[in-house]
Amino acid sequence: MNKEEFAARRENLRRILKEEKLGALLVTLDANRYYLSGFELTDGQSDESAGCLLITAQGKDWLCTDARYEEAALRLWNASEIFIYSGAGSGGYAGQINKLLKDNVKGELGVEANCVSLSFYQVACAGLSTVPADGLVQRLRIIKSPEEIAAMEASCAITHSMLNWLPGVLAHGRTEEQIAWDIEQFFRNHGAEGLAFASIVAIGSNAALPHARPGQTAVSENCCVLVDIGCRYKDYCSDQTRTFWVGDTPPDYFLRTLKQVQEAQRRAIELIRPGAICKDVHAAAYNYFESLGLAKHFNHGLGHGIGLQTHELPRLNAKSETVLRPGMMVTVEPGLYYPEWGGVRWEYTVLVTEDGCKIL
Amino acid sequence: MNKEEFAARRENLRRILKEEKLGALLVTLDANRYYLSGFELTDGQSDESAGCLLITAQGKDWLCTDARYEEAALRLWNASEIFIYSGAGSGGYAGQINKLLKDNVKGELGVEANCVSLSFYQVACAGLSTVPADGLVQRLRIIKSPEEIAAMEASCAITHSMLNWLPGVLAHGRTEEQIAWDIEQFFRNHGAEGLAFASIVAIGSNAALPHARPGQTAVSENCCVLVDIGCRYKDYCSDQTRTFWVGDTPPDYFLRTLKQVQEAQRRAIELIRPGAICKDVHAAAYNYFESLGLAKHFNHGLGHGIGLQTHELPRLNAKSETVLRPGMMVTVEPGLYYPEWGGVRWEYTVLVTEDGCKIL
Repeated sequence: MNKEEFAARRENLRRILKEEKLGALLVTLDANRYYLSGFELTDGQSDESAGCLLITAQGKDWLCTDARYEEAALRLWNASEIFIYSGAGSGGYAGQINKLLKDNVKGELGVEANCVSLSFYQVACAGLSTVPADGLVQRLRIIKSPEEIAAMEASCAITHSMLNWLPGVLAHGRTEEQIAWDIEQFFRNHGAEGLAFASIVAIGSNAALPHARPGQTAVSENCCVLVDIGCRYKDYCSDQTRTFWVGDTPPDYFLRTLKQVQEAQRRAIELIRPGAICKDVHAAAYNYFESLGLAKHFNHGLGHGIGLQTHELPRLNAKSETVLRPGMMVTVEPGLYYPEWGGVRWEYTVLVTEDGCKIL
Repeated sequence: MNKEEFAARRENLRRILKEEKLGALLVTLDANRYYLSGFELTDGQSDESAGCLLITAQGKDWLCTDARYEEAALRLWNASEIFIYSGAGSGGYAGQINKLLKDNVKGELGVEANCVSLSFYQVACAGLSTVPADGLVQRLRIIKSPEEIAAMEASCAITHSMLNWLPGVLAHGRTEEQIAWDIEQFFRNHGAEGLAFASIVAIGSNAALPHARPGQTAVSENCCVLVDIGCRYKDYCSDQTRTFWVGDTPPDYFLRTLKQVQEAQRRAIELIRPGAICKDVHAAAYNYFESLGLAKHFNHGLGHGIGLQTHELPRLNAKSETVLRPGMMVTVEPGLYYPEWGGVRWEYTVLVTEDGCKIL
């Protein structure tokens, strides 16, 4: 991505601002900031921000950050439109941003209410007319460009190589933590920039925890191993889940659950095409589980959009009215969980194409 | 850490709630949540939360999360005080939490305004009497227990081994990205759970970017390499910076800058003891640079507290009135930056002891 492409994205956002009759948008979500500028994809910790953008309908945009990032900002942005704030604590810098906003925003200011902190909002937006405007940048991000699709295909290709290699590593005695590290090393040694998210490697009953953290549980003679992993390549995330049986005597309950989960996934993917509604795709899997009396063992949504973030729009869940369009990218990951022995989840990443979909 | 220790921390917080005349605290900062419960140290991405805690003055505490984390929550918390919310989007689950709060909070509700999102606050806290109460949990976290200090000493010990080993890796042609990966592998292979933060490996003029991201710049015949790194051990962060000259002809400007930075650090550490005020410690370094006419090349605070998060309280900056006490842990990291050639930063982690301080 070069400077011109980020500028083109800002022009697209400006069209949305005009449609929405907003004077400006204060961009505080890290991935949105990066999508529009190339500046800092992720904030280091949940109570710290590297900065924000002010995108105005009339055309002048500001990158706001602190002095530590000034040199980095200068590599991406016109010097005259970089706003360097200072001062400890959010009161200090939020007050400086308040002045910038008052001087530069004509009309209503959109704020990303789902991620802006209460204290920052109260100080930075004091005296301004604001309106929640979450999801405006995501309206652009939800449709992937050919360049983004290529990055995600490459990101998925690394996960496929890893998943082909992985069974050889699932050796007796090897712990979840060790396997997670094997996976991370494979990713990095095969071109990935890093993990897309903390890998889940869950052995036996740990597989019943959809967000298990790898621990000291080890592969035994016969056990299930659930692996939910993804890497980043050219900034873009991949996300895949497989559930393996280690040992030569997979029990009937495992094989039956695996078959049920894969059938639910097949039914959902069959519906994915332009015009389909997200909640209907979710329902295809859910209703199948329900017909088997198993719906209570499926305790999460069917999937989610993916791109610069692992979890983004659209959501494939029971409530989402979003209509699928070409260029959207979603995961499809049904699962059935049993605290007694574990469970099975199976996940593909799927691109909506002009006439259907493509599994990456 | 076992369940009882987390419960004891909640009792300590309850005493603070009573002092502050609060009926309850809604804990939304991930590290605070973990400190009080052992539940999920970091949220996966900046617009997603694994859950929150409600700590009440009268003694009943709730862990609020979604069904994906229910099994994990049951391993840490009484089943009858786990609140499972559902529903897509923040409106849905925030509304459910609003009902929980209305049913269980007597008196004023403290909220962590620096990290709670505006939209979650508006829905979850509707109709409640709230007050910003940032930093209450941090009042406990700021003083490290012997067990926490031991974890941080071990975390620092891994970084020292790495820094002793590192010069051999700084070979001609090796890129920042490759070196960053070498460092991460060393950490993991020597017992660390992972990185404390994204490593900074900055060669030549990149060293002038205090938050540089490792890229394709390679070690040359004679260049400076700034390495700002840390790992996690038993959940606790370490943070160290060194600036190396690679090649046998370090120029005078590098040697001079290194000496100035180390002298500033020495002057600051000399002041660290119980009773010292954070801004005075910062001033010791800043004033030294100013006496040399170099203050404008030092564009960040002197240091920060460290523990479960890389950056926590207290801050060593120009404004912090915090008085140092035994058990506080701070980094001391002066730097001087020159966009033309790079710069030097040098960082130690320092524990405030009963009668002075100890460099870890």
